[in-house]
Amino acid sequence: MIDLRSDTVTKPTAAMRAAMTAAEVGDDVFGEDPTVRRLEERVAEHLGTEAALFVPSGTMANQIAVRLHCRPGDELICEETSHVVLWEGGGPAALSGVTCRPIRGTSGLFTALDLPAPRPTDIHAPQTRLVWLENTHNRGGGRVHPLADVCEIAATARGYGLALHLDGARLWNAVVAAGVPAAEWCRHFDTVSVCFSKGLGAPVGSAIAGPQTLITLARRYRKLFGGAMRQAGVLAAACLHALDHHLSGLTGDHVNARLIAAAVADTPGLRLVPETVETNLIWFEADAALGSAQAVADRLRTRGVLVAPLGEQTLRACTHLDVTRADCEQAADVIRRHAGG
Amino acid sequence: MIDLRSDTVTKPTAAMRAAMTAAEVGDDVFGEDPTVRRLEERVAEHLGTEAALFVPSGTMANQIAVRLHCRPGDELICEETSHVVLWEGGGPAALSGVTCRPIRGTSGLFTALDLPAPRPTDIHAPQTRLVWLENTHNRGGGRVHPLADVCEIAATARGYGLALHLDGARLWNAVVAAGVPAAEWCRHFDTVSVCFSKGLGAPVGSAIAGPQTLITLARRYRKLFGGAMRQAGVLAAACLHALDHHLSGLTGDHVNARLIAAAVADTPGLRLVPETVETNLIWFEADAALGSAQAVADRLRTRGVLVAPLGEQTLRACTHLDVTRADCEQAADVIRRHAGG
Amino acid sequence: MIDLRSDTVTKPTAAMRAAMTAAEVGDDVFGEDPTVRRLEERVAEHLGTEAALFVPSGTMANQIAVRLHCRPGDELICEETSHVVLWEGGGPAALSGVTCRPIRGTSGLFTALDLPAPRPTDIHAPQTRLVWLENTHNRGGGRVHPLADVCEIAATARGYGLALHLDGARLWNAVVAAGVPAAEWCRHFDTVSVCFSKGLGAPVGSAIAGPQTLITLARRYRKLFGGAMRQAGVLAAACLHALDHHLSGLTGDHVNARLIAAAVADTPGLRLVPETVETNLIWFEADAALGSAQAVADRLRTRGVLVAPLGEQTLRACTHLDVTRADCEQAADVIRRHAGG
Amino acid sequence: MIDLRSDTVTKPTAAMRAAMTAAEVGDDVFGEDPTVRRLEERVAEHLGTEAALFVPSGTMANQIAVRLHCRPGDELICEETSHVVLWEGGGPAALSGVTCRPIRGTSGLFTALDLPAPRPTDIHAPQTRLVWLENTHNRGGGRVHPLADVCEIAATARGYGLALHLDGARLWNAVVAAGVPAAEWCRHFDTVSVCFSKGLGAPVGSAIAGPQTLITLARRYRKLFGGAMRQAGVLAAACLHALDHHLSGLTGDHVNARLIAAAVADTPGLRLVPETVETNLIWFEADAALGSAQAVADRLRTRGVLVAPLGEQTLRACTHLDVTRADCEQAADVIRRHAGG
Repeated sequence: MIDLRSDTVTKPTAAMRAAMTAAEVGDDVFGEDPTVRRLEERVAEHLGTEAALFVPSGTMANQIAVRLHCRPGDELICEETSHVVLWEGGGPAALSGVTCRPIRGTSGLFTALDLPAPRPTDIHAPQTRLVWLENTHNRGGGRVHPLADVCEIAATARGYGLALHLDGARLWNAVVAAGVPAAEWCRHFDTVSVCFSKGLGAPVGSAIAGPQTLITLARRYRKLFGGAMRQAGVLAAACLHALDHHLSGLTGDHVNARLIAAAVADTPGLRLVPETVETNLIWFEADAALGSAQAVADRLRTRGVLVAPLGEQTLRACTHLDVTRADCEQAADVIRRHAGG
Repeated sequence: MIDLRSDTVTKPTAAMRAAMTAAEVGDDVFGEDPTVRRLEERVAEHLGTEAALFVPSGTMANQIAVRLHCRPGDELICEETSHVVLWEGGGPAALSGVTCRPIRGTSGLFTALDLPAPRPTDIHAPQTRLVWLENTHNRGGGRVHPLADVCEIAATARGYGLALHLDGARLWNAVVAAGVPAAEWCRHFDTVSVCFSKGLGAPVGSAIAGPQTLITLARRYRKLFGGAMRQAGVLAAACLHALDHHLSGLTGDHVNARLIAAAVADTPGLRLVPETVETNLIWFEADAALGSAQAVADRLRTRGVLVAPLGEQTLRACTHLDVTRADCEQAADVIRRHAGG
Repeated sequence: MIDLRSDTVTKPTAAMRAAMTAAEVGDDVFGEDPTVRRLEERVAEHLGTEAALFVPSGTMANQIAVRLHCRPGDELICEETSHVVLWEGGGPAALSGVTCRPIRGTSGLFTALDLPAPRPTDIHAPQTRLVWLENTHNRGGGRVHPLADVCEIAATARGYGLALHLDGARLWNAVVAAGVPAAEWCRHFDTVSVCFSKGLGAPVGSAIAGPQTLITLARRYRKLFGGAMRQAGVLAAACLHALDHHLSGLTGDHVNARLIAAAVADTPGLRLVPETVETNLIWFEADAALGSAQAVADRLRTRGVLVAPLGEQTLRACTHLDVTRADCEQAADVIRRHAGG
Repeated sequence: MIDLRSDTVTKPTAAMRAAMTAAEVGDDVFGEDPTVRRLEERVAEHLGTEAALFVPSGTMANQIAVRLHCRPGDELICEETSHVVLWEGGGPAALSGVTCRPIRGTSGLFTALDLPAPRPTDIHAPQTRLVWLENTHNRGGGRVHPLADVCEIAATARGYGLALHLDGARLWNAVVAAGVPAAEWCRHFDTVSVCFSKGLGAPVGSAIAGPQTLITLARRYRKLFGGAMRQAGVLAAACLHALDHHLSGLTGDHVNARLIAAAVADTPGLRLVPETVETNLIWFEADAALGSAQAVADRLRTRGVLVAPLGEQTLRACTHLDVTRADCEQAADVIRRHAGG
């Protein structure tokens, strides 16, 4: 089975498992896990921030960021199809009393011109505190925020006195696709979250990075949310291994994704949305004539290819460490021949 | 000074004050204020609901409704310029952990076609529970939701298993403008809030109405929010008086509003947005050539007319019980002659 | 019927109603109600604080205070039978995410020795921010916090870096009973809430007082909680009248309360808890032999005296503006003759 | 260094690491990690519940339980030194708007007689929903709740219509100490949390168990809190290994703890609190003459023994998988000779 549903399905390689087995560990709640510390230092250095904190998931990294920047009654501005809006269970409101103010972007992206002014300071209005970017943008089709746009958004937001958070669950895909180092992206933000269990192929783990004062507070919120773990070095070792060995593989994922994308584009009744596939995600729509997204996915599954039906007529395919170029060629072939029914 | 900033600026008339003075009162926290009880029964009957509850403000009525229908992590769907989004301090998130999902309407209005399907029941998604309408719609320019649209929205929402709340802060303006009785609007909703201190001219007070089980719970939430008052009959008497005597005056307010609207439409550099003025609110935009909204408002003020600058170039005028036809004619004249500078 | 259930049952006098009728009003959400402004200035001056804010209820005043001093995850220290613990619907947690840390006092009172140290700053612990006093203490039997104890508690709390709030719903009873001016009590606290609809006999209204920066923020939270009212001067006028005319009457209430207390003490099967009645509240326990508290209250009611059953065997009587000395003599007589069955 | 600070400091054994290395994994957010599934089934079977859910920490398991049983404004009853009160960051209030109502126990334990009645259903009162037990009780000195007491508490709670949760972070210590199987304890509760990274020696992981309907909901809340992990089987494998191989070791931990306890009891200036050491925790107080708890801990540390100073004069020692009988004998010797200075 060629599993293209998500880049989260990757399984640790033998080498990664070996690194986990060899990991020196300690009680990280006491700050004594050397491998976690090493990962946190490595991430901070890599992203160009003062500090970083290891957490169990990207959702927790993001929800900690919401709480770091906002108080109940505050508002954050984000593109309306962002992960924080669609797929975090209403966390900003439920966990931190924070309102998301969704703005309409194009393929998840927006520019400084799209950024609304903060709400007035009048007592009637929620108080705007934070601008939220996701790069690459999952629901936007894995699109990369152009660096120039990010700069301008950040400058405008700072002009308004707003903080900025980058949901970088797939930041490394942007790094590879744009040829812009991670730290170059991150310097425009107050905090950044990154995820090791997507393109990098680690089994579990994300990080939130930023200035030391915020990361110290993040440690408190991680405990509150139930994300403090003990000998987490067994996980951190996999993340370190992934940083050492799996970053370069992302280029191949992007090449492979274009193979799949071409197959989708060629298939009557399927339509790439967005048309441009820049990284490892391929979102596409199926005409009703082909049946529901579920029906299309079922047809592909019987031919050994898994894609994710994520809407009535919407599907997503995703390349990653555990699918080879040959797998993707075969998947492309299956799509061409069988997606249409 | 002709005060057109808001219909909330009205002062109780002598007759209303007399009614307040004569009000029989008791401790309403013990359920012993006969005037409050009478008002609640009167409102329920008028709106065609089982029960109603008197509260200090429209904001509290709405926030109680949010909590009645939703739990933390849930989502409500509303038009993006609704009062609950713009002017309730981020209350749904801050008080009840609820996410507002704003949809784009036209002049605050939307149809069943605009209503998105509930989010999937998948664990990633906020759970959609409630559809929220505001009628008339303040930021939408006092527009009346066509009854046919309301029916279809309600039918669609119920088909999705969603509850419906009507923010009827200015419901009576819709009643008068559309010639549709209040109960006819309300029967499409699970709960309704109405306000006595807008067009009806009472000094303080709103109500939330609905089935007895929800209103019993609303009483608990009113206490939690700090809205339970003791001898509130002094306020309720004014509201009863307003229901008896001030409903009919709304027709005049609407006629007067069209006078003002015509003046705005005639003034170069001012533009009605929306163009249609159906009730007592006139929202308009000033060209930059005329200076900021504040500058326009300042010019009118020096000529004895108060309007509200509510955005960089956005203003609102509002007719109500305390401005006469003559006042409005004069205000229209001042606008024509002086708004442009 | 002699109603001794609560001092909240008082009805506005004719003179108070006249003051309400004559009140100059405006839209207080715009800060334009001169009577509300006058009340707020008067309260601030009277309590010796920079500023004050009028709110619909004591519960709202208190819940605003919680939010002013604490963030979600923080903790406040209060006596375990305080109003904020027993009778505000779990508001600190439900509205502001704040944990109450109840300490055991004697008749609601405690000393600096009872004050626990703040929790450690360790990430595991809730962060202690606020010490909460209630004076007089309702469930404690209307007891007055000795000023010396208040001083020491405040000094200790400040030594710990904690803020202090005074729930002064019945502060004026303490003022009269102890002969200590309100401002003398208040200077030990960051914020103070007072209530006009208890001993002072106004129909509706409370205030929160403190430094200008906090009261400016309190205005925002009042809006959020739905407590902003329009022509609230009709209520504020009653409160001003009460401050002018009803403060002195509290002395008589306290004398009357001792009449009732003596009757309770003399009645076999009834027991004053606490024994000392210093102000206008008389809490007492009924032996099971006399039946439930409800049964005792029922017997008194059939003889024209209302008291409040507030526990299985617990009752409360309360003197106030609307019961005369003669009423209390009669009530005392009824208790002596009929409470026992 | 003999590390007696906590049973959370244990490091995975070689065999446990081998099990982790060999673990079959999948994406657990998709429900496809066979090892996690196997662990969840195993835990449910072991505890006698319908279902169980793997989570990153005991704190998250507990906070999910709070949210399962309560809504904002509700109250849970727990002993005042419970983990949920002292060491979960004020989570019940901060995450779920829930008030903890702490009751005073003896060494963390209480009986049905100590259980207060639910608050009245009156609108003023928080609504009581849940009774919370911790067994063994950490701050109570590792004491075991006698099963008969648990039965009576449960019967009383159910009579009141309340739900019950067991914080079983160290349930297996109770199982071993009392000779009562886990399922025998659990059948008195609606939900139970257990932890694999304490006495059982797994690096990371806890579980919440209960009826299928609640565990389905728990899965949603785990996602909301950021606790959903991908190839979590690498962790679950360690937990399964621990269940297979480390349960029996707890008996030795308890024997070892008594060695330490005897040394503490014999040392002038140290005092066991509580005196009885039933499981693996030894809490003790140091006289001021010996210096602060920190000073005592420092003296022991220079002799190779780590204990945890957890209060001004309070310390805790803890036996576990990574300290042998010989280690404990040596630690006892060090305590006897050097704790006093």
